[in-house]
Amino acid sequence: MTDEFEIAQRNRVRLHADRGNYDREVIYQIIDEAICCHVAFVEGGQPFVIPINHARSADRLLLHGSPSGRLMERAQAGEPLCIAITLIDGLVLARSAFSHSVNYRSVVLFGRGYPLTSDDEKLQALEAITEHLVPGRWAAIRRPTASELKATAVVAMPIESASAKIRSGPPVDGKQDRELPIWAGVLPLQEQPMPPVADPLLDPGIPVPDHVRHYRRK
Amino acid sequence: MTDEFEIAQRNRVRLHADRGNYDREVIYQIIDEAICCHVAFVEGGQPFVIPINHARSADRLLLHGSPSGRLMERAQAGEPLCIAITLIDGLVLARSAFSHSVNYRSVVLFGRGYPLTSDDEKLQALEAITEHLVPGRWAAIRRPTASELKATAVVAMPIESASAKIRSGPPVDGKQDRELPIWAGVLPLQEQPMPPVADPLLDPGIPVPDHVRHYRRK
Repeated sequence: MTDEFEIAQRNRVRLHADRGNYDREVIYQIIDEAICCHVAFVEGGQPFVIPINHARSADRLLLHGSPSGRLMERAQAGEPLCIAITLIDGLVLARSAFSHSVNYRSVVLFGRGYPLTSDDEKLQALEAITEHLVPGRWAAIRRPTASELKATAVVAMPIESASAKIRSGPPVDGKQDRELPIWAGVLPLQEQPMPPVADPLLDPGIPVPDHVRHYRRK
Repeated sequence: MTDEFEIAQRNRVRLHADRGNYDREVIYQIIDEAICCHVAFVEGGQPFVIPINHARSADRLLLHGSPSGRLMERAQAGEPLCIAITLIDGLVLARSAFSHSVNYRSVVLFGRGYPLTSDDEKLQALEAITEHLVPGRWAAIRRPTASELKATAVVAMPIESASAKIRSGPPVDGKQDRELPIWAGVLPLQEQPMPPVADPLLDPGIPVPDHVRHYRRK
């Protein structure tokens, strides 16, 4: 196995090809940092795209949801999926309108899903998805019962093809614009946790655990 | 014109129907707050989904990009699009794994695009997209030249059909789980601006303008 995804028609970064990256590790880090992904599928020629939580297990993306949801229906049926994951790092404010941009790290993944059916596999996937959302959470909570497992569809999508696209750094204005008396630079953006809000029904004697108090995304 | 989008097959919120919302104002506020959207389209039966900046002008979504990009090609051709916009507001930490969730405000939009062709229309759309990203920016920057306008494709997509899906508030554990000695609550997340980073090429005498210094979403 190579460390890069093969460049083919569907995953080739066409615009700003210099921002394209096919490295498995780079792609996997973006997948692992993001809270949610956007899954696209086709139903009768009509595209759909739906946000959902995910996790990665080796070279597979894991998704879960109600078996009767539109997305899980299509994913369980093994139809072609495309999944985008996008992290916004900042606004790139140039001197010219044309050179405005965004600093981002994004991936686009292609594959087909298949349902996980055994309780063991489903449980492992739900653990991965929970730990992806909040590392340390799984050990603290009440695990799924048999009937909850039954009510949850879990799909694994082996990542057949993928690419990342990344922009970072300052604005790049044309030479003749650089002398303009206009402020240019980057406004970084970060998704940050605010102080936790206890469930109103919570026994006030139960303290905020470390995995919540010290939460940060990667 | 009613204030709600008609509920039909493709925009009906099937899962957690109580979280569904078809109100035009609710949907438009989510569109206006988000920095980017994810656009899905179909090419030879294969779904694609790509992140891109947007703006809203009345009942149309505006997109721009290079005319040779895959997305702009499909959008200019008037093929069916589906656009998802997702704001993550917090992680919902329940006592049971099964009741974990995310607080979010999301919309899914359906329509077909058409290219804007006159310089005036394109300029207005680029102003809207720039102002959507950073309110107050357009007045401060060097406007697009005729050749820059030519190099930029702009597509308007009238929003034919849409729905929002919103979850907020504390976790909802089953009755028998509420007595478990497990911390439960919400960890709010907010996308926040960090201190601006000037372009290394910037004349240090140029101060950070108010529209950057006081930047906030919405």
